[in-house]
Amino acid sequence: MRTRPLKVALLGCGVVGSEVARIMTTHADDLTARIGAPVELAGVAVRRPSKVREGIDPALVTTDATALVKRGDIDVVVEVIGGIEPARTLITTAFEHGASVVSANKALLAQDGAALHAAAEQHGRDLYYEAAVAGAIPLIRPLRESLAGDKVNRVLGIVNGTTNFILDKMDSTGAGYQEALDEATALGYAEADPTADVEGFDAAAKAAILAGIAFHTRVRLDDVYREGMTEVTAADFASAKEMGCTIKLLAICERAADGGSVTARVHPAMIPLKHPLAGVRGAYNAVFVESDAAGQLMFYGPGAGGAPTASAVLGDLVAVCRNRLDGATGPGESAYAALPVSPMGEVVTRYHISLDVADKPGVLAQVATVFAEHGVSIDTVRQHVRPDSDGEASLVVVTHRATDAALGGTVEALRKLDTVRGVASIMRVEGE
Amino acid sequence: MRTRPLKVALLGCGVVGSEVARIMTTHADDLTARIGAPVELAGVAVRRPSKVREGIDPALVTTDATALVKRGDIDVVVEVIGGIEPARTLITTAFEHGASVVSANKALLAQDGAALHAAAEQHGRDLYYEAAVAGAIPLIRPLRESLAGDKVNRVLGIVNGTTNFILDKMDSTGAGYQEALDEATALGYAEADPTADVEGFDAAAKAAILAGIAFHTRVRLDDVYREGMTEVTAADFASAKEMGCTIKLLAICERAADGGSVTARVHPAMIPLKHPLAGVRGAYNAVFVESDAAGQLMFYGPGAGGAPTASAVLGDLVAVCRNRLDGATGPGESAYAALPVSPMGEVVTRYHISLDVADKPGVLAQVATVFAEHGVSIDTVRQHVRPDSDGEASLVVVTHRATDAALGGTVEALRKLDTVRGVASIMRVEGE
Repeated sequence: MRTRPLKVALLGCGVVGSEVARIMTTHADDLTARIGAPVELAGVAVRRPSKVREGIDPALVTTDATALVKRGDIDVVVEVIGGIEPARTLITTAFEHGASVVSANKALLAQDGAALHAAAEQHGRDLYYEAAVAGAIPLIRPLRESLAGDKVNRVLGIVNGTTNFILDKMDSTGAGYQEALDEATALGYAEADPTADVEGFDAAAKAAILAGIAFHTRVRLDDVYREGMTEVTAADFASAKEMGCTIKLLAICERAADGGSVTARVHPAMIPLKHPLAGVRGAYNAVFVESDAAGQLMFYGPGAGGAPTASAVLGDLVAVCRNRLDGATGPGESAYAALPVSPMGEVVTRYHISLDVADKPGVLAQVATVFAEHGVSIDTVRQHVRPDSDGEASLVVVTHRATDAALGGTVEALRKLDTVRGVASIMRVEGE
Repeated sequence: MRTRPLKVALLGCGVVGSEVARIMTTHADDLTARIGAPVELAGVAVRRPSKVREGIDPALVTTDATALVKRGDIDVVVEVIGGIEPARTLITTAFEHGASVVSANKALLAQDGAALHAAAEQHGRDLYYEAAVAGAIPLIRPLRESLAGDKVNRVLGIVNGTTNFILDKMDSTGAGYQEALDEATALGYAEADPTADVEGFDAAAKAAILAGIAFHTRVRLDDVYREGMTEVTAADFASAKEMGCTIKLLAICERAADGGSVTARVHPAMIPLKHPLAGVRGAYNAVFVESDAAGQLMFYGPGAGGAPTASAVLGDLVAVCRNRLDGATGPGESAYAALPVSPMGEVVTRYHISLDVADKPGVLAQVATVFAEHGVSIDTVRQHVRPDSDGEASLVVVTHRATDAALGGTVEALRKLDTVRGVASIMRVEGE
């Protein structure tokens, strides 16, 4: 057992950082035993140095994060600031000064993962980021290590707790989007500006990271198709129920059937109630992974929060510290497959389309003809004549599998029909 | 990229071994890219050399496993023979001759894990065994790496697919144990001699391994309390339903409330329908992990079968090969906590007890007195008078939390009451 401690610099001391510092103190003996050397908090970079931070020696606190990562005696930098800058520059500087890095920064990794991995490799250091995706749920490590001898074909997950809380609330209470969002905000599940969550930016960053690791291919944030869930209505949930489904905001990373390309996307989708993801309640996250040999795996747990995220950070910290002692590094970026990332138009799935149509003979035939002309095969059609309607009916079409481009063309043509008054909703159907 | 291949000796070429060999061939390029060097099947030890093995060069096949592991040029030995001997001697010999080992052998690891880990450490080699517990589900790696900075308090899992298939069948069809077992046998889910599964030996081995890793403490197979599920009846399922529960064979590893000791046990138990483990169908496995910081995590997937188990073996193979190239080793045994393993009598849980009693006044008072005298607090009592009974009633008692010893004493005393004709069933209630 080495007695000289490994030195850790903590960048950021908010909800996650303060938990990391707390556990490093309270579980110091366990960490020492598991790492094989003591681990010492050598500095904490914060924005507001005057804030009282229980359990943290004020002498360790600094506002000069750059000086901290440049000190030269730091073994591991833990970055829990978030955002692109200054995190990116600090991480790069950390590598240049000999530190390994543990980060929880999904936005940065989704945007600049390749460059950061290259910097880590250049300096012979580790870049670990289990906490960047789905909080406490071990997902990065299983994907890049446990499944390293398998071929992953699909990753299908609920990776944003805020939106799952809102959708679960809409599903269980019949509330509308705004009402459910207000409750999420009141309970602290949604931020004052919920855009990153409800518009799917957060989930898209995670999808880029997961797709990259799963398919050994660089997938940038821009490669991820993204659709938020602010348009999901109580009526959509009613339609989903009729289908034996619920609605979730899903991150979906898929290898094409021919194996030659991949796609990554985030959007709300109907998913059968019997699918394990359908039962994921509240702010929990869960990720379904399908691979050639392992078959179907699911990983479930809290996707956010200070302590859960800190658990993931500390697991990485132990691994990175062990590597330092061994003079080794863990798996770096694996992008050798370099598969093309196809645009959304090439994604193949099923669709649930609600149309408002004129209630007169021949409409169904017209609509069916448009689908056929675009090569989209119809699975089921249901027609509802509303009692109070003024010559209007609603038509619900569920398709067989078709490309997103074909479906888009179909919808465009449907809108041009005189008998179609409007397209009330289009929702993909996944997980079947 | 190194071009000299890493050499792998495969011990056993049955359901799992043949899949490992197949994937090593079909995915050779991927494995090379992920490891950083080619990996070559250098020899396959089998019992019946005459059997035709598709895709395996007959020149590699040998019946002399000992000579194979002694060759001296083997980098990794993959042991998928199972059983204690000759596997134990072969693994030890492999370490002595410079190889790392990937094993799927739960029985051996549960019995001799400490000695095997010591041998690996002595020779500076790796011992990995993700495939030994819950097939394809990443569980060993998440527990020993992802949660290395956390404190695990409980592992609660369905780790035997055969018994889950049988119990699920009993639950969904009302079948009795024998009928469900017969179907499992016919479908190939149960072996001709199902003892290891239905008596809980297989699950107990996995519980010992999981408890050891989760609590950083040596837990031997003998430390695991074990009760099979052959006595579970259709009546038990009916009782469970009345409680809003189902019945699963659970492996439960717990840290005592005071943190000073641990327990490990396998037995059938009632579990609330709303618990995620209740929904685990067929031969699937799932493991629930509760820790201080991460909270509740669940890992779900196929717990057995050739390809899923091979997926886990190959993930370990990639890790072990990478370590060889780095001149490093992965995490070895972590038993520093050395917590005492308490006997079953100290386990604290709830109980569901069905008694056949005389249908006369005062019986309930007598029974309640016995519970009180033994310090077991009653939560609910239901009394059923059977229409066709000859002065007999049934009494169903659900207790608050009590030690297994207190419950045992209570039941012993109940049996001595004249008014208690028999104890129809005792079942623990978990996961609340």
